[in-house]
Amino acid sequence: MNSNSSTKLNFSKNLPSRNQLPPESILFYDTILAKKPVFKAWSKKFKHKYALKAGETLKTLDSLQQILKKMSQDKIPTTTQLTFVAAGGGSIGDFVGFLASIFLRGRAFVQIPSTWLAAVDSAHGGKNGLNFQGVKNQLGTIYSAEKIFIVSDLLKSQPVERFADAFGEVIKASLINAPQIFAKLESKNDLDDQFLFQLLPDLIEAKMKIVKIDPFEKKGLRRVLNLGHTLGHVLESHFKISHGEAVKLGILFSARWSFHKAYLKDSEFLRISNLLHQFESKNNLNQLLSKIKNSEIEKLISKDKKSTSIGQVDFIFIRKIGKVQRESVSLSDLLKEIQRQKVKF
Amino acid sequence: MNSNSSTKLNFSKNLPSRNQLPPESILFYDTILAKKPVFKAWSKKFKHKYALKAGETLKTLDSLQQILKKMSQDKIPTTTQLTFVAAGGGSIGDFVGFLASIFLRGRAFVQIPSTWLAAVDSAHGGKNGLNFQGVKNQLGTIYSAEKIFIVSDLLKSQPVERFADAFGEVIKASLINAPQIFAKLESKNDLDDQFLFQLLPDLIEAKMKIVKIDPFEKKGLRRVLNLGHTLGHVLESHFKISHGEAVKLGILFSARWSFHKAYLKDSEFLRISNLLHQFESKNNLNQLLSKIKNSEIEKLISKDKKSTSIGQVDFIFIRKIGKVQRESVSLSDLLKEIQRQKVKF
Repeated sequence: MNSNSSTKLNFSKNLPSRNQLPPESILFYDTILAKKPVFKAWSKKFKHKYALKAGETLKTLDSLQQILKKMSQDKIPTTTQLTFVAAGGGSIGDFVGFLASIFLRGRAFVQIPSTWLAAVDSAHGGKNGLNFQGVKNQLGTIYSAEKIFIVSDLLKSQPVERFADAFGEVIKASLINAPQIFAKLESKNDLDDQFLFQLLPDLIEAKMKIVKIDPFEKKGLRRVLNLGHTLGHVLESHFKISHGEAVKLGILFSARWSFHKAYLKDSEFLRISNLLHQFESKNNLNQLLSKIKNSEIEKLISKDKKSTSIGQVDFIFIRKIGKVQRESVSLSDLLKEIQRQKVKF
Repeated sequence: MNSNSSTKLNFSKNLPSRNQLPPESILFYDTILAKKPVFKAWSKKFKHKYALKAGETLKTLDSLQQILKKMSQDKIPTTTQLTFVAAGGGSIGDFVGFLASIFLRGRAFVQIPSTWLAAVDSAHGGKNGLNFQGVKNQLGTIYSAEKIFIVSDLLKSQPVERFADAFGEVIKASLINAPQIFAKLESKNDLDDQFLFQLLPDLIEAKMKIVKIDPFEKKGLRRVLNLGHTLGHVLESHFKISHGEAVKLGILFSARWSFHKAYLKDSEFLRISNLLHQFESKNNLNQLLSKIKNSEIEKLISKDKKSTSIGQVDFIFIRKIGKVQRESVSLSDLLKEIQRQKVKF
């Protein structure tokens, strides 16, 4: 489907039964999942299945061509009922979602996120992408899954570090649209997967409320979901840190700037800053900022999809917990703010 | 835009002035157009432009990668205002439309059809496509142009044979949804480009009325536009005849079958058959049918995107001039009908 409003969410303990998926489904899954006996047994129910090595290297036109060749050799059924099922994290969802959106001008797409980051954020809203010549998601479409199965057994079997990685997007969603989640996070010292699983319906709803007012990002309204991502993407690309970690640092940068501009009250700024520090970071924002040149930041930001015109970029400020604001800023103002934060903090 | 309802149509004598297109427009054009001095002078108004060799060989992932590399070397502006302008026939529109739909998850697309076939049919409704391993349009999206400029000077400079080629789609549109155009065609012995140019607004409207009720072909309703295409695509692939010619023959096949099933009255069948013969064909349907094996037909049809399940295909019958009907038929019934027509006609 091309409309975002029709995605059906399904929360369950176990993987879906075979008859919850169309007969003409083909399965694409993260190779790593085959190590889990339950998953392996389940995958045998699919006549056509493809193991994919997850990660940014999967997301290329070359991988796409390889898979298309295999599908052609395997004579997969090309009827209108054909359904692409993706079991994996963000890169698997990005790759298979893109493939589903362009195969025979679009076939049904089903997601089974296997990472918390995908369950919280990337599986929802239809964005997919391939990288091209080092530019992340240079190619892609906005094409929503018809169904998303959120399977607690799959998510809870993840290593702990991937669990922490999701919190950048959790905090982001709460700041944009779900102050009640922000308050819940503040009250927790100890995070566990049961707690996060229970937060998922509200977190996803917070995101989807934004997506639905601008599903194809034509009005710019959807762009508020970019909170923490403008600088976040720069840090992620340059230092090869995880997406969740980069977003956390990007949110801190935005909170500091919003406070400096007096958009954000002292008390709210402190709450945000405290919560971000509560979720321990391996990286220090100032240390990273001092290790990257202005020219490099400029280069990376000018490649940003959200650049509205040459030298300008949409930046998301925080007005209060649960309210953000999109504003076009010049690249030079952004660089000045980076300089200011390096001296100040 | 991803919605088909918002395409703006513009009819004019001359090519659009530069300020009718966004400043951040990049031009893609059929190499052949550079031979026309007016076009060449006009193309100089674009900072970034790419000449493409038209034809099915353009429509590959390899060509796509080549163009993406060039665009990257040329540092084209990647802002949200970036607009892809395609001047050319069906293959140029298919290639550039696909590129626009996947570049940075979709940028604005403008079409300037330079062939009658594109002006009548392929530029409208958002379908684009690339071929993969011999399967036509195996990859593609449905992504409408924001604006389409129909330029009479450009169309009228076409060679005569390309003009005749458009008539398959003209007759198709009239049979589906525009009986008044069918009557106009019957009354004309002599076709000229002025006449066809005047028909364009009604022809495009006839198609777009269908497209709008099912823009992404999810309900199947849009599939009536496939009239003449099920067998047409088989003949086009196998005999390498032109698309317009193949569609004309496919319509004749459908009319004969519809008549045989008593869906179509004698008088209407005769009118259709007469009109099709009025536009002289280089090919004879029965001669072609006798030169292609059943196994080959089966192979080509099973690759059809409109196959609803294995061994079944949606076929479009004619009920009367201005009314068609979609029906799922088995491959074996289709082959039997081919056999019957070979003997009967």
